[in-house]
Amino acid sequence: MSCPAAQKTHFAHPFDDDKLKEECGVFGVVGISDAANFVALGLHALQHRGQEAGGIVAHDAATGFNSAHRFGYVRDNFTKSSLMETLPGDIAIGHVRYSTAGSKGAVIRDIQPFFGEFSMGGCAVAHNGNLTNADALRRELIERGAIFQSSSDSECIIHLMARSIQRKHADRIADALRRVEGAFSIVAMTRTKLIGVRDPLGVRPLVLGKLGEHGYVLSSETCALDIIGAEFVREIDPGEMVVIQDGHIESSRPFGPSTGRFCIFEHVYFSRPDSMIGGRSVYETRRAIGVELAREAPVEADLVCPVPDSGTPAAIGYSQESGIPFALGITRNQYMGRTFIEPTEQIRNMGVRLKLNVNKSLIRGKRVVLVDDSVVRGTTSRKIKDMILDAGAKSVHFRIASPPTAWPCFYGVDTPNRDKLLAAQMTEEEMREWVGVDSLKFISLDGLYRAVGEAKGRDNSCPQYCDACFSGEYPITPSDQLEKGFEMKAAE
Amino acid sequence: MSCPAAQKTHFAHPFDDDKLKEECGVFGVVGISDAANFVALGLHALQHRGQEAGGIVAHDAATGFNSAHRFGYVRDNFTKSSLMETLPGDIAIGHVRYSTAGSKGAVIRDIQPFFGEFSMGGCAVAHNGNLTNADALRRELIERGAIFQSSSDSECIIHLMARSIQRKHADRIADALRRVEGAFSIVAMTRTKLIGVRDPLGVRPLVLGKLGEHGYVLSSETCALDIIGAEFVREIDPGEMVVIQDGHIESSRPFGPSTGRFCIFEHVYFSRPDSMIGGRSVYETRRAIGVELAREAPVEADLVCPVPDSGTPAAIGYSQESGIPFALGITRNQYMGRTFIEPTEQIRNMGVRLKLNVNKSLIRGKRVVLVDDSVVRGTTSRKIKDMILDAGAKSVHFRIASPPTAWPCFYGVDTPNRDKLLAAQMTEEEMREWVGVDSLKFISLDGLYRAVGEAKGRDNSCPQYCDACFSGEYPITPSDQLEKGFEMKAAE
Amino acid sequence: MSCPAAQKTHFAHPFDDDKLKEECGVFGVVGISDAANFVALGLHALQHRGQEAGGIVAHDAATGFNSAHRFGYVRDNFTKSSLMETLPGDIAIGHVRYSTAGSKGAVIRDIQPFFGEFSMGGCAVAHNGNLTNADALRRELIERGAIFQSSSDSECIIHLMARSIQRKHADRIADALRRVEGAFSIVAMTRTKLIGVRDPLGVRPLVLGKLGEHGYVLSSETCALDIIGAEFVREIDPGEMVVIQDGHIESSRPFGPSTGRFCIFEHVYFSRPDSMIGGRSVYETRRAIGVELAREAPVEADLVCPVPDSGTPAAIGYSQESGIPFALGITRNQYMGRTFIEPTEQIRNMGVRLKLNVNKSLIRGKRVVLVDDSVVRGTTSRKIKDMILDAGAKSVHFRIASPPTAWPCFYGVDTPNRDKLLAAQMTEEEMREWVGVDSLKFISLDGLYRAVGEAKGRDNSCPQYCDACFSGEYPITPSDQLEKGFEMKAAE
Amino acid sequence: MSCPAAQKTHFAHPFDDDKLKEECGVFGVVGISDAANFVALGLHALQHRGQEAGGIVAHDAATGFNSAHRFGYVRDNFTKSSLMETLPGDIAIGHVRYSTAGSKGAVIRDIQPFFGEFSMGGCAVAHNGNLTNADALRRELIERGAIFQSSSDSECIIHLMARSIQRKHADRIADALRRVEGAFSIVAMTRTKLIGVRDPLGVRPLVLGKLGEHGYVLSSETCALDIIGAEFVREIDPGEMVVIQDGHIESSRPFGPSTGRFCIFEHVYFSRPDSMIGGRSVYETRRAIGVELAREAPVEADLVCPVPDSGTPAAIGYSQESGIPFALGITRNQYMGRTFIEPTEQIRNMGVRLKLNVNKSLIRGKRVVLVDDSVVRGTTSRKIKDMILDAGAKSVHFRIASPPTAWPCFYGVDTPNRDKLLAAQMTEEEMREWVGVDSLKFISLDGLYRAVGEAKGRDNSCPQYCDACFSGEYPITPSDQLEKGFEMKAAE
Repeated sequence: MSCPAAQKTHFAHPFDDDKLKEECGVFGVVGISDAANFVALGLHALQHRGQEAGGIVAHDAATGFNSAHRFGYVRDNFTKSSLMETLPGDIAIGHVRYSTAGSKGAVIRDIQPFFGEFSMGGCAVAHNGNLTNADALRRELIERGAIFQSSSDSECIIHLMARSIQRKHADRIADALRRVEGAFSIVAMTRTKLIGVRDPLGVRPLVLGKLGEHGYVLSSETCALDIIGAEFVREIDPGEMVVIQDGHIESSRPFGPSTGRFCIFEHVYFSRPDSMIGGRSVYETRRAIGVELAREAPVEADLVCPVPDSGTPAAIGYSQESGIPFALGITRNQYMGRTFIEPTEQIRNMGVRLKLNVNKSLIRGKRVVLVDDSVVRGTTSRKIKDMILDAGAKSVHFRIASPPTAWPCFYGVDTPNRDKLLAAQMTEEEMREWVGVDSLKFISLDGLYRAVGEAKGRDNSCPQYCDACFSGEYPITPSDQLEKGFEMKAAE
Repeated sequence: MSCPAAQKTHFAHPFDDDKLKEECGVFGVVGISDAANFVALGLHALQHRGQEAGGIVAHDAATGFNSAHRFGYVRDNFTKSSLMETLPGDIAIGHVRYSTAGSKGAVIRDIQPFFGEFSMGGCAVAHNGNLTNADALRRELIERGAIFQSSSDSECIIHLMARSIQRKHADRIADALRRVEGAFSIVAMTRTKLIGVRDPLGVRPLVLGKLGEHGYVLSSETCALDIIGAEFVREIDPGEMVVIQDGHIESSRPFGPSTGRFCIFEHVYFSRPDSMIGGRSVYETRRAIGVELAREAPVEADLVCPVPDSGTPAAIGYSQESGIPFALGITRNQYMGRTFIEPTEQIRNMGVRLKLNVNKSLIRGKRVVLVDDSVVRGTTSRKIKDMILDAGAKSVHFRIASPPTAWPCFYGVDTPNRDKLLAAQMTEEEMREWVGVDSLKFISLDGLYRAVGEAKGRDNSCPQYCDACFSGEYPITPSDQLEKGFEMKAAE
Repeated sequence: MSCPAAQKTHFAHPFDDDKLKEECGVFGVVGISDAANFVALGLHALQHRGQEAGGIVAHDAATGFNSAHRFGYVRDNFTKSSLMETLPGDIAIGHVRYSTAGSKGAVIRDIQPFFGEFSMGGCAVAHNGNLTNADALRRELIERGAIFQSSSDSECIIHLMARSIQRKHADRIADALRRVEGAFSIVAMTRTKLIGVRDPLGVRPLVLGKLGEHGYVLSSETCALDIIGAEFVREIDPGEMVVIQDGHIESSRPFGPSTGRFCIFEHVYFSRPDSMIGGRSVYETRRAIGVELAREAPVEADLVCPVPDSGTPAAIGYSQESGIPFALGITRNQYMGRTFIEPTEQIRNMGVRLKLNVNKSLIRGKRVVLVDDSVVRGTTSRKIKDMILDAGAKSVHFRIASPPTAWPCFYGVDTPNRDKLLAAQMTEEEMREWVGVDSLKFISLDGLYRAVGEAKGRDNSCPQYCDACFSGEYPITPSDQLEKGFEMKAAE
Repeated sequence: MSCPAAQKTHFAHPFDDDKLKEECGVFGVVGISDAANFVALGLHALQHRGQEAGGIVAHDAATGFNSAHRFGYVRDNFTKSSLMETLPGDIAIGHVRYSTAGSKGAVIRDIQPFFGEFSMGGCAVAHNGNLTNADALRRELIERGAIFQSSSDSECIIHLMARSIQRKHADRIADALRRVEGAFSIVAMTRTKLIGVRDPLGVRPLVLGKLGEHGYVLSSETCALDIIGAEFVREIDPGEMVVIQDGHIESSRPFGPSTGRFCIFEHVYFSRPDSMIGGRSVYETRRAIGVELAREAPVEADLVCPVPDSGTPAAIGYSQESGIPFALGITRNQYMGRTFIEPTEQIRNMGVRLKLNVNKSLIRGKRVVLVDDSVVRGTTSRKIKDMILDAGAKSVHFRIASPPTAWPCFYGVDTPNRDKLLAAQMTEEEMREWVGVDSLKFISLDGLYRAVGEAKGRDNSCPQYCDACFSGEYPITPSDQLEKGFEMKAAE
């Protein structure tokens, strides 16, 4: 059941469709007063992981659990003192989201964290990732009397917890997560405990930080520790659960031993460049991709220009390795938001021009290398090529900081269907022709692995990362999708 | 868990506390296109039964179940074409509410209708009344894995339905309602069926109407049939369930045979004067109360003035029976709403003056009979008396169109605790003195029964109505309240 | 130049067009702290004189002149502490308005009070009435370099003041008002002075009140004195100017001696029943009109029902004089506001049904006298007749508490063009037939004069009131209208 | 007189105070249908010149002049079809603004374009710049009967026009502008004519573009031509007026011959990098400043990092000239807006951290050159230094792409008072110490002139640019400021 009113008011702009989108960011704090304020700041730093909506739950001895869920940016909602005053207490968790699998439209009930009142007390759960057996679980749970309030796959976790026979919240969470399949980084809270869990493969990130003397933080990325002045402690391990209470951390492995396969696309695009993953600066990794790309796909040219803003670090690397000067040939309008309310026809048709403009006098007569992070549908690449040629460039060479994106992600990323993915339909040469550029080159999968620090490249017998979007090798069976008719890559 | 933001924005005005408040109105339509539009109009006509919030669920073959829940008046929300377009289909139900027992504040999740997705399809339920064993049921359901989303007693019904082993929605509703105790008039809907149920005593009203050739309507009151041009068919009987589909009505008695005890206060105050109950015009009943009152408690005076607006029909009757001229001595400001957002100190302290003004030149030097429908806390009566005396009245005589309200209602009416009820604390003479008037008389319980058509008055061995608020005789055991320490009247 | 955005959001409901509308109410306070709070309350009590918008200007030594202008009801805007805090000081004036002559749509710049910064300091002006030579004045002022900001006739006053060579604000106001023609009751303020003026005929009301020890109040009606607990002192005389400062009142006659001709329709409909005009209770006057009407136009019937709510006092009088029982046969929905935002087609077509419902069981088989205050277009009368007949009335007799409205008002009342006025197009018998009732009678002009206290009726050689809307005798030449082609009644 | 409600809702963030702010952007279109849509897009591209509010006036034969003025970003207001539909016609002008000199707070009446109804028809005027004799003019105009509606200096122009004896709008504009002193680039419109004027020194920019076959455009910058696909024609000359009608352009010199002194800070910071000024790419000029800076102030270091985003082009130039690698050591949060509504204490104190984060693993142990465009108060520079040192940098060297800003601008830029300007209080070495860095160097004034293309640097006898903010040499006497006590630099 949808609340359709919200649907009309958000109009995702066409060129926004041409990026993969991380679906969520999670953040939690315990052991510091006004915890919700810190969560708000953390979510602001994680806004790139989910721009559509956000929610915070806090607990306070006097008033119990309080929550607020809002559409729109964190900064437009969770900075107001009138709202934040309603979220007192020294433990809080929050969530930002892009959208949920399966929803007809934006619904306030779909905004996390989800909350359940259990006989041993309330528990709130925020989930980054996607459950691959959520449809089947939902059917089963409804059969057994569950009343679902949202269209979100994540709500299954709360209902599975409600049916667990365990006495402790953490045990119920473990019980529930043993029933689900898919990718999940979970931040949960009870009245006194902050709980973090990563799925056995650790597909999505989750890090632990220390705040002040007694406080602890769980966050999707380290950049959100920085904003509140928290100190990075370590990453939560794949398959690990941590329960934090009164300054103590208890770690367990509810799913048994496992080897992680972290999402390699977090390095390429999702994470913020100022975050650290696996001890590496994301910015440095992206610059290294540019260096690899310059080695793999050199070209004679006058300028290396990034496609703003995500292509910038790789463009710097490409420029440094190739010696071709780096230049900001495309200017991004910083006042561009993501959505419009009932836009005019003209706005609807403006596309990328509302956001980007070419620096004509810089480009005119030049051979230009454009560096972008990825090609999804390819529609934006074509428009940018047009703008560059209109500005009088002599030739245009696209260099892409990731391998061809040929397969959808089912682990918490919003990907178009396979038939919309340019790389699923065409060879590299066909893509070049379709985009209409002088050359178009992607980094190789091995090159990407080298750039993220695997000197020998990809270990094909036992890949170090989840790279399903490039390779079509899905480390977790996408059961719901298979049921809906998705065809996996034939075994070779 | 509350969503506290909404709490601040609604400030119930002090003098509003001095009336009992019906908590809900329900309305449903099937068999006519754009059913939700008719529901909106019906709810507008039932707004007096619940002014805080409203909700509509509609079903359409193409888009499934759609819903909208909003704080505020029906007319401010459900008249907009942009919203109503999102509620297509030829079946819809709706609900207006005052507030829910137990809630900390106004929460969007508490607004009905509630919806449940079951394995045999969705079902929406709107409830007028109050369940007297809801606390116990909720504890039991949570123990068995239910996740509650609201603080409303009515949500139990959905969870009980979800746990029923019946295959049909209507059977599940019957199953669920056999587990609950209390007062309920239910309007529910599936994809194709409109369902109505009244509790065995029929405490709250529910009527059936016919709309056009194929349409049927269920409504709390007949005045809401009038607004959409529907024809009154009959009242749903106490203990009856009707299932309406494709123009056919199926009636059953899921609770076995029962004798009704309709709420007598519906006649006195809750229902609209242009509604008909039990074949009688509510307006005429109220006028008849005034006539009885003039016989029981005559007084020498110059003017009979109603306390606007609910005292008017009884004042007319009193004037007609007594021969004392009727006059509008108190003017009501028609621009007065119910709530203020962050009001100034001065507004907060204005009280009844914001709403009422005395017609000084009319009142000066006169002996005035003031007719009001009821006395709850008595605070407003005192303020009105002050205003009348300030205007120069020679003497003031209060005549009340109901017996002393000495007991709280647990069947869907918002009553103060017993210790706040003036009549629970004082004798009639003490009340007269406290209010500060020359005389203060209530109609007798027998007089009230006569006015509603029981020529012989109340049958004390087997009362024809629920009159617990006057008599303290509760026809349904208020279990949750007893558990919380409420003391019932000692058996005599 | 209009700001068209506001136009869409206000949709005046059809049946609202069927009443004449007072265009404004004015209110001012001096000599009490937080004066703006009192003005807000006064405007709330005057809301019936202008429901579209309101404005307040206040002056405070520390922050100077501050103002707020808002669309919507006073109670929805000027009760918020966050707004009222921005209007400090012990002098303030305010204005509520319906709409301004000539405006294409609702524009925030048209909301009064208007403000002008002069070399001797600022001055704010609020105007109730209408200037009949505003078009000519505006052309002249523009020719002389004035920049108009609104489409309001009242803005001329500020520009005339700016061009006056007088040194004092009050003298400039007098200078300006000597140049204007039309009806005006003005409340103005400087940093320290509260100023009130009525036009030589005193067409629109203005009264003086005392508030606390040092405070004075100017108000359109006495009911607004009551709400703030101010004491009525006297009416401002036709042609009088008062300047109030430091508790002293200075009175002058800037226009020379004059005899008043107060608007008789203020008695019939515009003023609130709890106001007093010329020492008479408006409610009592209206009841007396009903008494006169019963004498002039008796009929055999079973019930006298008011058309809510404005017909009620006359209906009471009619009932008392005729002996036919008074009854509330038509119920008014108290949740009905005046406007809808983008309403559905259905709402647009509902008309009077959204607002009124007939009490069927009361009306069925009865001969009904319906008492209404006036007939303008007659469209609502027809709809009400339909409702009454649908409910089964045996016969319907309309009795109208004013003479036929056959001429537009140009003195501050929103009247349709003459060709839209039913009484300008038809005889009484034709009207009866068109409305479709068994009889239709208006009170005579002499009868109306008697009811307002002129025992001998109208002095035709020197009428005591402005009754142009009934008689076509305009006491002030409507120059702008004549220029636009309006034809006055031929001299007889 | 202010409308104080708006004041509370905008809270300029502390670190925003540490940049000079262009106060306005202007844009106009004639000769193309739906002109207002193009103006909206143009204003969106000029948003960096004024982020607080925007306004558009359009003219259409059928509905006359229509306008809309809104607080907030262009993209949040002027993209909605419901608003844009109210602005029909083939001629329109618009304005974005930061704030107006002298205003107590944000007032809707201060938003331009301003409009005046004259005897020969309406005229709307949008002004970029600042009038240096506005206070004196305002006093004089009030004395002569003008009613001011805003606190804006620009409103004087409309009132001066209203008093001109000329018969044509353009002649009245010329008349008015001959009375004003200061900097102005004006875009104005009548029913059929688009008019552009630059002050004799041409301090602020204004360019002419061609749109489609018959359309013409006036814009503050060329980047706004690009977004609507207009072709750059030429800059309007200093002291030139153009009147465009029916595809013809008439040029005149109402102020006689003059030599321009364009604002050199437009090159440094105000204009967008993708605009062209005087045939030069702004981006290239900024890169050239970086090259000059590297020559003038070399340093041994490991990384050159821009202070985002305005320092980036100069940082690229510095890196290229010095050979020190360029790196994005500071990440900017792209979801950061400019204002907060009632922010929490914590948000208020967060400062630059909400917006910027340091890439710790990149910076740690490095000698870092930070390139920023300017230093105003210096407070942000200090905070950035702290962040860089906290991240573990070995040493920090600031390089500033403009000379020390030691004097306020009175020509349309929002500058702090002189005593708030760091460079007005300290020597370069004192500033270095106060900021707390290892070295701090500004480009020389001659170096800046070289970078903008004056190979021989500044011609001190006859400077080519307005550089008053650096040199203290004001080419237009700031009369109002002198009257308020501002002391100009002593002649040397």
